[in-house]
Amino acid sequence: MSLTPRDPDFAQRVRRSFAKQSAMQTFGVRLARVEPGAVDLALPFRADLTQQHGFLHAGVVSAVVDSACGYAALSLMDAGAAVLSVEFKVQLLAPAEGASFLATGRVLRAGRTLTVVTGEFRNDADVVVAVLNGTMMAVRDRPGLVD
Amino acid sequence: MSLTPRDPDFAQRVRRSFAKQSAMQTFGVRLARVEPGAVDLALPFRADLTQQHGFLHAGVVSAVVDSACGYAALSLMDAGAAVLSVEFKVQLLAPAEGASFLATGRVLRAGRTLTVVTGEFRNDADVVVAVLNGTMMAVRDRPGLVD
Amino acid sequence: MSLTPRDPDFAQRVRRSFAKQSAMQTFGVRLARVEPGAVDLALPFRADLTQQHGFLHAGVVSAVVDSACGYAALSLMDAGAAVLSVEFKVQLLAPAEGASFLATGRVLRAGRTLTVVTGEFRNDADVVVAVLNGTMMAVRDRPGLVD
Amino acid sequence: MSLTPRDPDFAQRVRRSFAKQSAMQTFGVRLARVEPGAVDLALPFRADLTQQHGFLHAGVVSAVVDSACGYAALSLMDAGAAVLSVEFKVQLLAPAEGASFLATGRVLRAGRTLTVVTGEFRNDADVVVAVLNGTMMAVRDRPGLVD
Repeated sequence: MSLTPRDPDFAQRVRRSFAKQSAMQTFGVRLARVEPGAVDLALPFRADLTQQHGFLHAGVVSAVVDSACGYAALSLMDAGAAVLSVEFKVQLLAPAEGASFLATGRVLRAGRTLTVVTGEFRNDADVVVAVLNGTMMAVRDRPGLVD
Repeated sequence: MSLTPRDPDFAQRVRRSFAKQSAMQTFGVRLARVEPGAVDLALPFRADLTQQHGFLHAGVVSAVVDSACGYAALSLMDAGAAVLSVEFKVQLLAPAEGASFLATGRVLRAGRTLTVVTGEFRNDADVVVAVLNGTMMAVRDRPGLVD
Repeated sequence: MSLTPRDPDFAQRVRRSFAKQSAMQTFGVRLARVEPGAVDLALPFRADLTQQHGFLHAGVVSAVVDSACGYAALSLMDAGAAVLSVEFKVQLLAPAEGASFLATGRVLRAGRTLTVVTGEFRNDADVVVAVLNGTMMAVRDRPGLVD
Repeated sequence: MSLTPRDPDFAQRVRRSFAKQSAMQTFGVRLARVEPGAVDLALPFRADLTQQHGFLHAGVVSAVVDSACGYAALSLMDAGAAVLSVEFKVQLLAPAEGASFLATGRVLRAGRTLTVVTGEFRNDADVVVAVLNGTMMAVRDRPGLVD
């Protein structure tokens, strides 16, 4: 698989788009790594984002890995394309407990329209909390929809 | 499939547990329906929970349907069991735009350990934004883990 | 969602393509229903397609529901497009035991490129053995690839 | 994660159970590797197991990777437990073309009841045709159900 970005401005493009994801700002997430086909996001534990047992909510975990994977996909898309999540599956392997977390997004296969992604969510003890496997889409024909 | 709750206190139990999901409070979600095997959650649009195009973030959508499905599963579990998400898949069918949304969680099959669930996320124009299909688990042997 | 077929010849097209799926012939599967966005496949139990406990193999179940869903998607595609499975998730709800089975494929959303599908696999006692949720793709630009 | 088998007879147990999967015999599949938490299956191309474009049917691909993953899970289960597929998701990355194929099943997390698995299906040019991510279950309380 070619990890050569079609858009030389890919890193700035990911950073600009990420800055517009208000959900990520609300969750306290920051970009930790932007490379072609690989994006990492970091976040601290947040008591206001937990489920009933005090662990980070599985949906919040999903949101952060989904963003990491979406931006990993966007990093390989041609300029002008917007990225949308088609679908993803999340498997929860361990409770999301810890002081901080890292979500990784990786491209398995980059097609012209569809990108296959895989991601992980780890805590600060390097325990894999969740894995995500999904499909991202490059959208080119919707006015006003970019990155 | 039997939708007879094994715990007559199921509705209060779901309400008590939901009240502890701080992520749902943070997202402005409220319980709209609690019946055996069926739980609905309602929420307004929130500009601070969006992705880069201004739609509700797919992960936030997932979080709310996951909670609806988890509580649909819990409503049929015996007293003392705690519910955990094993895995779920989310398919995005339309942008999450609208003034308000409803997430529905339904039990397809309730086993002693595993519960198969399905859910939807609709906007106020009744457009199906997303569907979720997942597996919930009844956990009985972890000290301190209930509901 | 519009269930109006873009190709008036959709039923013959599905039948012609199905006749080329040698795997379905090998499994003894026949087309039981072809309507816009809805295709059913029927098959008898086959002792040479079982797993270790004597039930029909989960992968065989998946294969038949995948075909039903693929053809449900193809029934709504424009002439000249070929259908490919992008991904699907199968959840097993009950052992695949019985004398005969019916697989149903239904279109949830038909886009120009992607079609969201859902399917079921039932036995002759009308027990739901499995549910499938997936994504099909219309491929138009690969020489020699049709239907 | 511990990959220490709880059943010292794990390899023979996998081989005995695999020999009972008539679907795998019908497909011409053979066991290529049995280690704790890792099972590989090999098969030749078969013209009678194809879809309409002449590639191996996605459901056949799924069946073989599902078996590889199920046996990877069984290899770590205690004696007396039977393995059942709870659910799996398959993502198709490339057409299943080639003269022969290898399916790999790997355990990501082995719990007492649930085992999280991941698998791949590669052709003889080492192209990844499909990835599978799923959940297997140890069943202990059903009379007559073993391995």
